[in-house]
Amino acid sequence: MRALVAVSRPDGAGGRACLRTDYPRPIPGPGDALVRVTRAGVCTTDLEVLKGYRTFDGVLGHEFVGVVAECGDPAWAGLRVACEINVGCGDCPECARHRPAHCVRRHALGVFGRDGGFADYVAVPLSNLHALPAGLPDDAAAFVEPLAAACEILEQLHVRPGLRVVVVGAGRLGLLCAQVLALTGCELTVLGRHADALKLLCGWGIPARRVPAEDVSDLRGAADVVVDCTGTADGFTQSRALVRPRGTLVLKSTFHGTTPIDLSGFAVDEITLMGSRCGPFPAAIRLLAAGHVQVMPLVSARYGLAEAEAALEHAARPGVLKVLIEP
Amino acid sequence: MRALVAVSRPDGAGGRACLRTDYPRPIPGPGDALVRVTRAGVCTTDLEVLKGYRTFDGVLGHEFVGVVAECGDPAWAGLRVACEINVGCGDCPECARHRPAHCVRRHALGVFGRDGGFADYVAVPLSNLHALPAGLPDDAAAFVEPLAAACEILEQLHVRPGLRVVVVGAGRLGLLCAQVLALTGCELTVLGRHADALKLLCGWGIPARRVPAEDVSDLRGAADVVVDCTGTADGFTQSRALVRPRGTLVLKSTFHGTTPIDLSGFAVDEITLMGSRCGPFPAAIRLLAAGHVQVMPLVSARYGLAEAEAALEHAARPGVLKVLIEP
Repeated sequence: MRALVAVSRPDGAGGRACLRTDYPRPIPGPGDALVRVTRAGVCTTDLEVLKGYRTFDGVLGHEFVGVVAECGDPAWAGLRVACEINVGCGDCPECARHRPAHCVRRHALGVFGRDGGFADYVAVPLSNLHALPAGLPDDAAAFVEPLAAACEILEQLHVRPGLRVVVVGAGRLGLLCAQVLALTGCELTVLGRHADALKLLCGWGIPARRVPAEDVSDLRGAADVVVDCTGTADGFTQSRALVRPRGTLVLKSTFHGTTPIDLSGFAVDEITLMGSRCGPFPAAIRLLAAGHVQVMPLVSARYGLAEAEAALEHAARPGVLKVLIEP
Repeated sequence: MRALVAVSRPDGAGGRACLRTDYPRPIPGPGDALVRVTRAGVCTTDLEVLKGYRTFDGVLGHEFVGVVAECGDPAWAGLRVACEINVGCGDCPECARHRPAHCVRRHALGVFGRDGGFADYVAVPLSNLHALPAGLPDDAAAFVEPLAAACEILEQLHVRPGLRVVVVGAGRLGLLCAQVLALTGCELTVLGRHADALKLLCGWGIPARRVPAEDVSDLRGAADVVVDCTGTADGFTQSRALVRPRGTLVLKSTFHGTTPIDLSGFAVDEITLMGSRCGPFPAAIRLLAAGHVQVMPLVSARYGLAEAEAALEHAARPGVLKVLIEP
């Protein structure tokens, strides 16, 4: 079958993406489903893996939907599904807490230890599947995984309607986080760099400012909650400066390397830094199905699986939002 | 009057402490009380100020108790008091929230902008005073300020009895944090370097281990809450390693400079880093008055105000707990 494979460099400094047409079709293990991929999305993490965030040799892609093609359990056969990416060991305290995302022996489809969804087929544990409602098209359903990650903020933090919230970074993840946060009724502002993204926000009624052109000095030290979706150390520094004393800085970005941080400032200002990653799929499916979150305007481009290398290159360009891959 | 004064270096790289005998006795402003200091304690922050954590030229000392000697409000005259250290502008959003500790224009007695309590007298705003119960001796009351800082952890974080908590650092602040956390009934372990502190913990029934001699590998990635009281970048790194995924790392330390941090690890493991500083005086007074927290065993040495320079030197030695100054 066809598959976009990450090939790591021997020195561990990242890798390259390579389309293969002879990749063996996965043989699902017991408890797995074989999913025929119908749509997938490119995420910044895919690009970070190739930059060396993780050493990974396998099929990329962790945002995907498809149809169950083979499965031991007939109840799942033929269903359209979105797939969670974390596969726990099933045997540790985190798995006992039903948090395979934090199992220390976990694999993550398309990120480490297990093949992902930029392929014709992918093997996925049955417990990772979520059936999709008939009214939710594949295009929109491809956003379930990143939208769930946006919902994770509300899973971790009580964002009350009276709070002043700033999302820094209006990229593919920032725009989803902004929409989810806007649903709380909070006083939201989004800072972004690209006119297209700001235009989308404007259309959704979410106040947005273009940085660095527009002044944000009134937000400095003023936000109850800041969500850093920039994926850069500089963005983190900017986000930190907006948090009021005793406020919360939510970190949605993963990026390579260490960042020098004035820890004393966190103690003195009693800032809470909250790392945030994968989130609840059912909530994301409900929000999409109800039309509370708009994802189609985020689609910047579409590629066939045969052009998946070009899809990743496209997704890496500044200002590009979601690039979809259609096997 | 006598006062231990911090004299900053012109290059901003810290300063030295100098005992003066000709320091002008403060003239209390309207709304201030003149407090005759009866007991004060040396804190690591005093030492950090001299290392350059803050540029400060004034009387050191922010842990102190005394008797109101002069005051516009007769209700306070002659009362024994503990004194909060943060003095807000009274005019900003943080002050409106009754959080002068986070006023951006605040001063902090003995730390920046305003003289502290290593002196015969100190001027303190009436709103910073807390009357002490008769049964609470000055020695114990000198611990109200740091004990309040320990209580701040519980003000910020719901430490449930079922949680596994580790305090890293069994110095003067760590021992107070440990005692306050033990009152929640949580499963507590304290890691310390000095035999005397570990002996105290043992006497209080709090499990403690001596590091690096004793193995702590079973705690790695296992604690729901870790409280870093080490005041060092290495201590922070060690503390971070003990937090379980989705756990909380409470940062009680202030120290000079920046620390390189793997931010992605915070996102991936969804760690919450919570800075924590000054806390509720009334709670600390209640805990001391009720005998729930033991502070007298923490007294390592006592000095007269005339020997205050020596008191600071003593407090800087490894393993030394609280050094009291008795004017």
